[in-house]
Amino acid sequence: MNEVVTLAHGNGGRFMRELIRDVFLRHLDNANLDISADAASLPPASGTMVFTTDGFIVDPLEFPGGDIGLLAVHGVVNDLAVMGATPRWLSLSCFIEEGFEIARLERIAISLGRAARDCNVAVVTGDTKVVPRGHGGGLYMAMSGIGWRDPEIMLGMANIRAGDCILVNGTLGDHGTAIILARNEFGLHSDLHSDCASVLPFAAAATQIPGLRFMRDPTRGGIATVANEISLETGLRVVLDEARLPLSEAVRGVCEMLGYDPHYLASEGRVIAVIDPAYAESLLAVWRSIPGGDQAAMIGRIETGRPLVVLSTRLGGERLLDELEDDPLPRIC
Amino acid sequence: MNEVVTLAHGNGGRFMRELIRDVFLRHLDNANLDISADAASLPPASGTMVFTTDGFIVDPLEFPGGDIGLLAVHGVVNDLAVMGATPRWLSLSCFIEEGFEIARLERIAISLGRAARDCNVAVVTGDTKVVPRGHGGGLYMAMSGIGWRDPEIMLGMANIRAGDCILVNGTLGDHGTAIILARNEFGLHSDLHSDCASVLPFAAAATQIPGLRFMRDPTRGGIATVANEISLETGLRVVLDEARLPLSEAVRGVCEMLGYDPHYLASEGRVIAVIDPAYAESLLAVWRSIPGGDQAAMIGRIETGRPLVVLSTRLGGERLLDELEDDPLPRIC
Repeated sequence: MNEVVTLAHGNGGRFMRELIRDVFLRHLDNANLDISADAASLPPASGTMVFTTDGFIVDPLEFPGGDIGLLAVHGVVNDLAVMGATPRWLSLSCFIEEGFEIARLERIAISLGRAARDCNVAVVTGDTKVVPRGHGGGLYMAMSGIGWRDPEIMLGMANIRAGDCILVNGTLGDHGTAIILARNEFGLHSDLHSDCASVLPFAAAATQIPGLRFMRDPTRGGIATVANEISLETGLRVVLDEARLPLSEAVRGVCEMLGYDPHYLASEGRVIAVIDPAYAESLLAVWRSIPGGDQAAMIGRIETGRPLVVLSTRLGGERLLDELEDDPLPRIC
Repeated sequence: MNEVVTLAHGNGGRFMRELIRDVFLRHLDNANLDISADAASLPPASGTMVFTTDGFIVDPLEFPGGDIGLLAVHGVVNDLAVMGATPRWLSLSCFIEEGFEIARLERIAISLGRAARDCNVAVVTGDTKVVPRGHGGGLYMAMSGIGWRDPEIMLGMANIRAGDCILVNGTLGDHGTAIILARNEFGLHSDLHSDCASVLPFAAAATQIPGLRFMRDPTRGGIATVANEISLETGLRVVLDEARLPLSEAVRGVCEMLGYDPHYLASEGRVIAVIDPAYAESLLAVWRSIPGGDQAAMIGRIETGRPLVVLSTRLGGERLLDELEDDPLPRIC
């Protein structure tokens, strides 16, 4: 096999067939993936079908705690999980830049395949395109996912009421900070890893608790962006409590040194839940009992008042967390 | 709104929300698209679920007879149609290069929305990423699709037998040739348009005819590539009859002048069927009766013998049509 991807790997012919067989099929193989067909026929399932898609352009492609393949699986699994669904089938569309190292593509495929098996999902259909050198970013991926949920689980921002509590299952901004460090632009070093992970155990447990209104994973734009979406959609005031927001020392330190606001930094293994206050303590206890959930916290509440997002600071003041306008960190996910 | 896409349109914040609302939601809106959720919950359907994905990197993004949006819808619809399925739901993932003109994005969204309505499919979930200037090709798209098929329709290369006939529903290579001309590299002019279209009427009609074995749309790599896939998978010889292959005068002329082999050029609105010879004439008659099917033709047959693809020439000779090795035409779809 060639050592790098060439335009001929995208032409539909022999090199493409070999690339698909030797890299993707080898590491993503499963009973429902048939590379001789243009689409996968899938066994029946019960429940309401949930369908999502996400694009991935992270730079660098490999970073402490993950890579674009792991990120793609968890990104899609998490989008389905926060809808209350059980993820099941994935599609993978790759945009590979001419000259990309095949060994690197294979490392990413191995990681992607392992993440899929860990989440009990399978890549059942795919497509590969090669873009000419200088027209890509090494490797971009688009992944779609299908899951099923109990039709009685009806989560959504429309359910949110004043008085509801906001919870998170762990520290915030680890992924964004890990990417900043991985870019090595500032000469900073740390053992911080991306939090890239499946939130399915947390989401599935939450759907068993009464009073759950809504879940969302705080990826691009972080917790501040999720809070702004809630405020815009519900017309309610969202208050986040600075003292309770779980931030690792590394995230805190990097943000202080470089001037980033951690409330806008992405997590890739976290879930935000909005829940009836009567059940918030139950959810917190359940989340803390799940492996990786020891930092789970009640971080805020929904209030009546002007539809704004406010950070209630340690010093007793209030700071407005507005919608992002510039992009502090392109190619984060 | 800004006139071009900026990195801030990809940050999850206000500009991204406005871009999604003003461009995508405006032109793709439907009852199942909820941009306040990360995924779409979809109504139940009967039959076997079929799932596919495709990436689109065509250059130029707009060409005679279509654009990347139209191409994406038809590409995914056709991948489902050739499985015998009725397409229903689409996802759209966009990779937009910083600096891309918003008016152009809107033209493409309008075209995409119109194509979706024409095919009775709906975009129900999406994602937008912005890549920095110099790391993209203007606009790349990945689209996944879900359809349902009658569980009794079991098409696949494994059904193919020696003696089967090969049919196509129209002229070959029009899309590839239209793209060559649209690049304006050769100073050639023609009124040739891409054949970009839904093959669903042809595919649906074919599934009603007994003896249908397999269908495939001859996109990247053209009819020669589909024939090679059949030969490799079945271990049978595939013979294509040069005199019967429908080629427009424009395709013939451009290929002669520029040295392209039309058998390897992409179509984006054509379907190849392999069928029991006893039913081949019925299928041909049905296809010719469908609007746009007047050029449908019986173009070859499956034979025993060494697993090769052979073009039986007008002069009575034979020419081997091998698998593509180089890429004659990058970014064709």
